[in-house]
Amino acid sequence: MPKFIHTSDWHIGRLFQNISLLEDQLHVLKQVKKYAAEHQVDALVIAGDIYDRSVPPAEAVDALNAFLAEFMSDLSTPVIMISGNHDSAKRLRFGAPFMSASGLHILGDIRNVSTPVVLETASGPVHFFGIPYHDPVEVREAFDVEVKTYDEAHTHLVSLAEQARSRGIPSVLISHCFIDGAEESDSERRLSVGGADRVSYQPMQAFDYVALGHLHSPQYKGAEQIRYSGSLLKYSFSEHQQSKGVTLVEITDQGATWEHLPLIPKRNMRVIEGTLDQLIEQGRQDPHADDYILARLTDKQDLLEPMAQLRQVYPNTLELERTQFSVSRGSQLVADVSNRRSEDQVFKDFFSQVMGDELTDAQSQLLLEVVEEARAAMEGQE
Amino acid sequence: MPKFIHTSDWHIGRLFQNISLLEDQLHVLKQVKKYAAEHQVDALVIAGDIYDRSVPPAEAVDALNAFLAEFMSDLSTPVIMISGNHDSAKRLRFGAPFMSASGLHILGDIRNVSTPVVLETASGPVHFFGIPYHDPVEVREAFDVEVKTYDEAHTHLVSLAEQARSRGIPSVLISHCFIDGAEESDSERRLSVGGADRVSYQPMQAFDYVALGHLHSPQYKGAEQIRYSGSLLKYSFSEHQQSKGVTLVEITDQGATWEHLPLIPKRNMRVIEGTLDQLIEQGRQDPHADDYILARLTDKQDLLEPMAQLRQVYPNTLELERTQFSVSRGSQLVADVSNRRSEDQVFKDFFSQVMGDELTDAQSQLLLEVVEEARAAMEGQE
Repeated sequence: MPKFIHTSDWHIGRLFQNISLLEDQLHVLKQVKKYAAEHQVDALVIAGDIYDRSVPPAEAVDALNAFLAEFMSDLSTPVIMISGNHDSAKRLRFGAPFMSASGLHILGDIRNVSTPVVLETASGPVHFFGIPYHDPVEVREAFDVEVKTYDEAHTHLVSLAEQARSRGIPSVLISHCFIDGAEESDSERRLSVGGADRVSYQPMQAFDYVALGHLHSPQYKGAEQIRYSGSLLKYSFSEHQQSKGVTLVEITDQGATWEHLPLIPKRNMRVIEGTLDQLIEQGRQDPHADDYILARLTDKQDLLEPMAQLRQVYPNTLELERTQFSVSRGSQLVADVSNRRSEDQVFKDFFSQVMGDELTDAQSQLLLEVVEEARAAMEGQE
Repeated sequence: MPKFIHTSDWHIGRLFQNISLLEDQLHVLKQVKKYAAEHQVDALVIAGDIYDRSVPPAEAVDALNAFLAEFMSDLSTPVIMISGNHDSAKRLRFGAPFMSASGLHILGDIRNVSTPVVLETASGPVHFFGIPYHDPVEVREAFDVEVKTYDEAHTHLVSLAEQARSRGIPSVLISHCFIDGAEESDSERRLSVGGADRVSYQPMQAFDYVALGHLHSPQYKGAEQIRYSGSLLKYSFSEHQQSKGVTLVEITDQGATWEHLPLIPKRNMRVIEGTLDQLIEQGRQDPHADDYILARLTDKQDLLEPMAQLRQVYPNTLELERTQFSVSRGSQLVADVSNRRSEDQVFKDFFSQVMGDELTDAQSQLLLEVVEEARAAMEGQE
């Protein structure tokens, strides 16, 4: 029966605390290739956020190019990808019309949602419909329809794909979106502030399988065949307990089945806790001492250059927390927009996630003024 | 006999005085397509500087993608391009391995200079060898050879291509380089300061035709079949008298023949001269009043907002010169590094060409100090 690997959120070229993760990414991509060969899959499906930025570093572009060239020349297995919110669809899709004949399908144009990639497998054809990441404005402009919300926009595209399905041919939908109620991680970039980015899963139920991207934790939502594969790697310390991997999907006569295939990172992302002395002692015998480390120090007294000391044994220690001094940053929900948090706090987090930088004092001051002005105006209306 | 169009230096996405030239570029690209259809060419060859910058605007990427898709789907004519010094080879060549089967050949890796694009024409095969723009360091690293100068590096690559030629099959070399003694224009970005970027034409003589890019004025150098097609458009007022176009090449049994096919711009780049009153009068009847205009005003008295007045009739007036006040900028050789010019002047021009900006006062001061220091050190050595 037709089989494929579903993966997403590669974020090739991502920096983690200013360290390039390219080597780590290529390390697990080798495992993806190995899984593809081992299970003789018919396709590799990547559900968006191929790169980490609209303009990725040239080295990242070149590394992905080399991986795809090797993957496809060694395995002769087609690759189907859509653009995510981190990608520039226009940049990613350059040359796409000339690549599909060779089996590289880059779906980066919402105007093509009705045109499936047709995969001929030993057990017959499978249709893959791709919905690249989009905002409501793009859908309004491309299709001249009145859609206002992310949900309406996404539902419009899903219905176009659904209408293009062929009776009796298994169909897979690929989308990069945030299903309402699904579980967030720290390392996703929010699509819009305040929950307006959520879409409903119901319109997607007609497909035999839905390969989703955007959320970094493997999960399903709404129905079991509507799945997030999760990201390629842990991209934040808050994900330290997630099991990253790819999803092996098989389309059977009774519907789709799936299996999580784990990816073993070159350097894991770990949170360790103890006194500085305990951690140094532990590090001396730790076979994975080059993992990326967030260390929670429980010492109560002042410490002399704890980071430098810890890096003697854990060279990739990236964050230190003093449990006695502050709420630990690793457990802080950066993306939390619940009512318990003030507007300016939410905006500050949003800013730092998008810009990778904190607000300056002047910006903070301006923000506060704007928030107060808005609040005053709203109170005036009531 | 095999025929192809040789063009170069498209600089898609270029800004001229902060105005996007994309519309102007697409206007003449339509003519390129028309010529290709009319002459039933076997290929379109673009000798580098496809884009104007290593990271072109997304709109430029998308526009080029759309042009190529239409060109190739309407004409079924292959396109062969190399990267130039304005392009990022790594970005441009993404996906290249998957495109060649569809007839889009992006040659952006010097490691492949020995592998020609083989074009099967009605009169037999033709081999196209591509030498993407490179500096000596890249050649040293890729081939582990001791080349120090641009000339040695280029000659090494040419000889690799030459050795890979097949007896009896016409071979075309495509390169993006600056042949010693050839004529510069204002709008090229210098490859290195002081003439170190020049390469010799002699090694390329073995090829049936050499399709060059980099210099913006159509010309040949060394031998008649070693030709620059020139840029797609005028990219500086100093080129106002150049005739831009593409080169139609035919490979016959007696060698290559060629013909210049002119491109008619949507808005020409022109230099006009006279008093403000004369030019306003002339503009009222000028059928091409929306051309890009550099106006040389010969008035001797003060003028009230001459730019605003002139734009009433010539809306795209971009530069004004007062012939009474200063040496006209249009005739100034920005790239002139002759002995008559001081080092700091040469550097200032280089800086403004590369950065598109003038040195600040502080930078100028620093430059002067450095130049003086270097001169003092050199005098000390003598």
